[in-house]
Amino acid sequence: MDAPGNISWAVTATALVLLMTPGVAFFYGGLVKAKSVISMMMMSFGAIGLVAVLWILYGSSMSAVTSPDQFAGNPFADFGLSGLAASPDANVGLISIAYGATFAIITVALISGSIADRAKFGSWMIFAGVFATVGYFPIAAWVWGGGWIMNLGDLLFGPDSGVHVIDYAGGTAVHINAGAAALALALVLGKRIGFEKGILKPHNVPLTLLGAALLWFGWFGFNAGAEWLSEDMGGVGLIAINTLGATAAAILGWIVIERVRGGKPTSVGAASGAVAGLVAITPACANLTPGWALVLGLASGALCALAVELKFRLGFDDSLDVVGIHLVGGLLGTVYLGFFATEVGLFTGGDWRLLVVQLLASGGVLLYSFAVAWVIGTVIEKTIGFRIENADEIAGVDVVVHGEEGYALTT
Amino acid sequence: MDAPGNISWAVTATALVLLMTPGVAFFYGGLVKAKSVISMMMMSFGAIGLVAVLWILYGSSMSAVTSPDQFAGNPFADFGLSGLAASPDANVGLISIAYGATFAIITVALISGSIADRAKFGSWMIFAGVFATVGYFPIAAWVWGGGWIMNLGDLLFGPDSGVHVIDYAGGTAVHINAGAAALALALVLGKRIGFEKGILKPHNVPLTLLGAALLWFGWFGFNAGAEWLSEDMGGVGLIAINTLGATAAAILGWIVIERVRGGKPTSVGAASGAVAGLVAITPACANLTPGWALVLGLASGALCALAVELKFRLGFDDSLDVVGIHLVGGLLGTVYLGFFATEVGLFTGGDWRLLVVQLLASGGVLLYSFAVAWVIGTVIEKTIGFRIENADEIAGVDVVVHGEEGYALTT
Amino acid sequence: MDAPGNISWAVTATALVLLMTPGVAFFYGGLVKAKSVISMMMMSFGAIGLVAVLWILYGSSMSAVTSPDQFAGNPFADFGLSGLAASPDANVGLISIAYGATFAIITVALISGSIADRAKFGSWMIFAGVFATVGYFPIAAWVWGGGWIMNLGDLLFGPDSGVHVIDYAGGTAVHINAGAAALALALVLGKRIGFEKGILKPHNVPLTLLGAALLWFGWFGFNAGAEWLSEDMGGVGLIAINTLGATAAAILGWIVIERVRGGKPTSVGAASGAVAGLVAITPACANLTPGWALVLGLASGALCALAVELKFRLGFDDSLDVVGIHLVGGLLGTVYLGFFATEVGLFTGGDWRLLVVQLLASGGVLLYSFAVAWVIGTVIEKTIGFRIENADEIAGVDVVVHGEEGYALTT
Repeated sequence: MDAPGNISWAVTATALVLLMTPGVAFFYGGLVKAKSVISMMMMSFGAIGLVAVLWILYGSSMSAVTSPDQFAGNPFADFGLSGLAASPDANVGLISIAYGATFAIITVALISGSIADRAKFGSWMIFAGVFATVGYFPIAAWVWGGGWIMNLGDLLFGPDSGVHVIDYAGGTAVHINAGAAALALALVLGKRIGFEKGILKPHNVPLTLLGAALLWFGWFGFNAGAEWLSEDMGGVGLIAINTLGATAAAILGWIVIERVRGGKPTSVGAASGAVAGLVAITPACANLTPGWALVLGLASGALCALAVELKFRLGFDDSLDVVGIHLVGGLLGTVYLGFFATEVGLFTGGDWRLLVVQLLASGGVLLYSFAVAWVIGTVIEKTIGFRIENADEIAGVDVVVHGEEGYALTT
Repeated sequence: MDAPGNISWAVTATALVLLMTPGVAFFYGGLVKAKSVISMMMMSFGAIGLVAVLWILYGSSMSAVTSPDQFAGNPFADFGLSGLAASPDANVGLISIAYGATFAIITVALISGSIADRAKFGSWMIFAGVFATVGYFPIAAWVWGGGWIMNLGDLLFGPDSGVHVIDYAGGTAVHINAGAAALALALVLGKRIGFEKGILKPHNVPLTLLGAALLWFGWFGFNAGAEWLSEDMGGVGLIAINTLGATAAAILGWIVIERVRGGKPTSVGAASGAVAGLVAITPACANLTPGWALVLGLASGALCALAVELKFRLGFDDSLDVVGIHLVGGLLGTVYLGFFATEVGLFTGGDWRLLVVQLLASGGVLLYSFAVAWVIGTVIEKTIGFRIENADEIAGVDVVVHGEEGYALTT
Repeated sequence: MDAPGNISWAVTATALVLLMTPGVAFFYGGLVKAKSVISMMMMSFGAIGLVAVLWILYGSSMSAVTSPDQFAGNPFADFGLSGLAASPDANVGLISIAYGATFAIITVALISGSIADRAKFGSWMIFAGVFATVGYFPIAAWVWGGGWIMNLGDLLFGPDSGVHVIDYAGGTAVHINAGAAALALALVLGKRIGFEKGILKPHNVPLTLLGAALLWFGWFGFNAGAEWLSEDMGGVGLIAINTLGATAAAILGWIVIERVRGGKPTSVGAASGAVAGLVAITPACANLTPGWALVLGLASGALCALAVELKFRLGFDDSLDVVGIHLVGGLLGTVYLGFFATEVGLFTGGDWRLLVVQLLASGGVLLYSFAVAWVIGTVIEKTIGFRIENADEIAGVDVVVHGEEGYALTT
């Protein structure tokens, strides 16, 4: 793992995943009204700035535990990484932490999609910092850093059971996490003015497709990146083919549903389908055959295309469908493994125990993340306020909060 | 080739080439009218979804033959890659197939540039699937998978001749192929309303330049990617310098021609020149010295700048110049090798036989691809229709076909 | 350094840094008025074309010397790289030269930010070619190719002093260089009409943020790329964490200053802060602990946020703040090393001699680059003219010089 080939992929993957958060900014930014594009992008760029700094200061220390009953690691174990930087393991350790930072960043940035058009930037930044600290950092420890989810099979079925939660690249820690937190914030901030009148037209579709393109591109680093830690990087091939196939199938799944339901195949649907497929394959990328990955992709595109309408039926303003895509897609991919994970799923291996731990891991993250985000969001809303004034929402959050307009195209 | 360094470059190159098709979407998307941008981008994104799935299901099986007289491989040899995924070679095999998928995708996507503003999306998707199957997959087998083009020197001049067609990264299989198919479709669909009045202004030049930038960036994976299969990746340096130099020279070549002919140096010209240079260097990247690559680049920029006017003289509406850039550039690069390929060209080695096989390979692909695309396109046009109604073309293909508008910039 | 892992990172880094110049084009392009976006982008794309060709022809030969008292290498030592291409070292040598080309390109492109809205394209291209030749190529030799800056510690304090100028990735050769040249050109061309009325609104903020995102992404190649030359690539981890941390902190530094001074946190500020942080960490990325890198980042964001107002106080129209960001940020990062470079700075090692050589290197490049750019710019302005006519500036440089408009969004 410290050979040049491994290091080469590690730094490349780090850059790729970092680029995904601007990808989120453009994906989200294109979908809102022109008068909210700055606000939308700034919630992502602000998250990059703040979460990266916190991760380096204490977040990476919190994301590893020594025992499954620990909530999180000691934040002051290596504050600012001065110990690691001086150690002989610095190269591998630091690149690993840089890579981990990009996951923390994007998880927080994804949440912002549910509160488009109506959030105060300062309040968002406080939320981002606190949620990263008590939401993402501990969950990362649970899933990948030796915590209870990583050991759930052992805890339930004994240390010799061989049952382990499968979440290769973050179905629980990133997508269910972000989706559940987004639902909580949507409820805390409430509906936008005019929400009942239906979906607003995206102001810049090419910007949204650019975001989707950067996301898919970067997602090769997101899914296959951690393979740099294995000596021979032997899982890269399967992960790459699945990151390609499931996503492609999900594009088809989404636009077929649009057609079947009597509509037209939209480019926003194709882009959303791609993201849905990427989300679903995230936990499963290393543990499905290419064929089962195609099926998962198709299913995720179709299911999420239906799920994004839930918000209108249930009446919560998850503005840019973080719930319908990241929560639903993340749940689908994580639970699907319980059935179809190579050799160990219920259908592929005849054992129901993987399904149990996948469900418990998903449910545990969902409930914790929702609760934490709801509490943080509510405290902010009740104290300094999270949502902007109605008049400001009508005037446009960009001008009011940032003093900027996205475009000045006329002369 | 299964060392971490090779795998690292393989997965990086796969992601790079995948990003090129969104690059095509933006390059093309910016060039059309604002009311066609969705349609233009969706032909690329639709191709990504469909062609990737077909490639995984049966396309990669079709792209390798065991004898030069085979038309294509057996599509059901490893349907859905379940056999490969279970084999010990899975890592190298799957990443190779993922990489190959990105070539199939972009070849199909490139074609869409000739039918801007006027294609039905469903018909395009049918064309994309059928053309990938009978156009691209077999040609990939001919050129790289053991087929007749790969063995053309042996077939013509005997097994000891040492003469081999040189098409390192796809001058024939990708660019001549896409360019010839684009010409066929332009003829099948006919001219846009108002074509005679001359070129329409691009609606979003920065979007087009973004597309060109992503194309160039990804093209390092396109040209140098296959080097991961060689133990020491010893050709990467030459390919990289040529992918840089020829493209840079082609930018200069194009804008100098603009100036020489009394016009102004345009940014669309610079971007088109870059693509022309990239196309021309594609087959030749590993077999020219840096100096000859500069000359090829300069020539490709200049020649394609002239070639894009052919459509007005000859009266075919190759809307975004797939013929003038990809067909002409691909022919130039492939034939140029016959003269200047290091040590084995007519001028560089005194042997005319390489020129013969380069010409035959180019011509063979050109004719086959044109014929196949013309037949598929004509059958679609005569049955379900390929071109939209005139009234819909005037109203704008985006709203009519996709129910979307590219922008909603005013409040 | 010729292992596949090293080659893999070398070619990836080359593509990454090449993408940065389109990043500059979009960052700058979004900041100007809509009627100047073509001109702004074309100065970058033109620089790519011209400087890459010159670098391959003779620039790389000029960028290495055999003795510190040489001004530059012999441009005809390996004209067009024909000697290297035929040598056994071709792979490593050519990829190294391709990588080096991308630094030459971006240095020249960065300069264009100070002459927005008012430069003739042909004059810019002449400037670009001449400045690359007598500005960048020699300075690269001084800093990295065996020249006086590389040997400054030995020259001043004796060959056993162990004192060496630290400029890992181009604080002097790229950023101070570009910033000083930009200041010279701003003075030569003079202020834009209406400069005194204050900053004009950027016409396309998402385009600027896209540019910043591509810059940051590519900067991993810029800062960590040269590590491919070390056998084990052992410095990648530290460079990656610092390229992440300093930049993130600089975003916070800039928007905090905006807030502190009574303004609102802007997205252009966040993007500018990111670039400022990247500039400052460039020379220092391999020689600061993660903690000191965070401090440098925070300081660079804050300082540059203040420095960009200098132009209004002092009355020079550095239109897009090349001085305020690249010159100031480059000076800050280079001099900061004199205090905080791991083990050898004044504070970290108790030795004042590093600070001396850092100051002399910075000052030497600053003065030389300013003088050269001023002379070249003045000669051009006095002969064929560099600045467009006032009437043309009001009409818009895009239409007048390039015959193009950036957008045609209305039907």
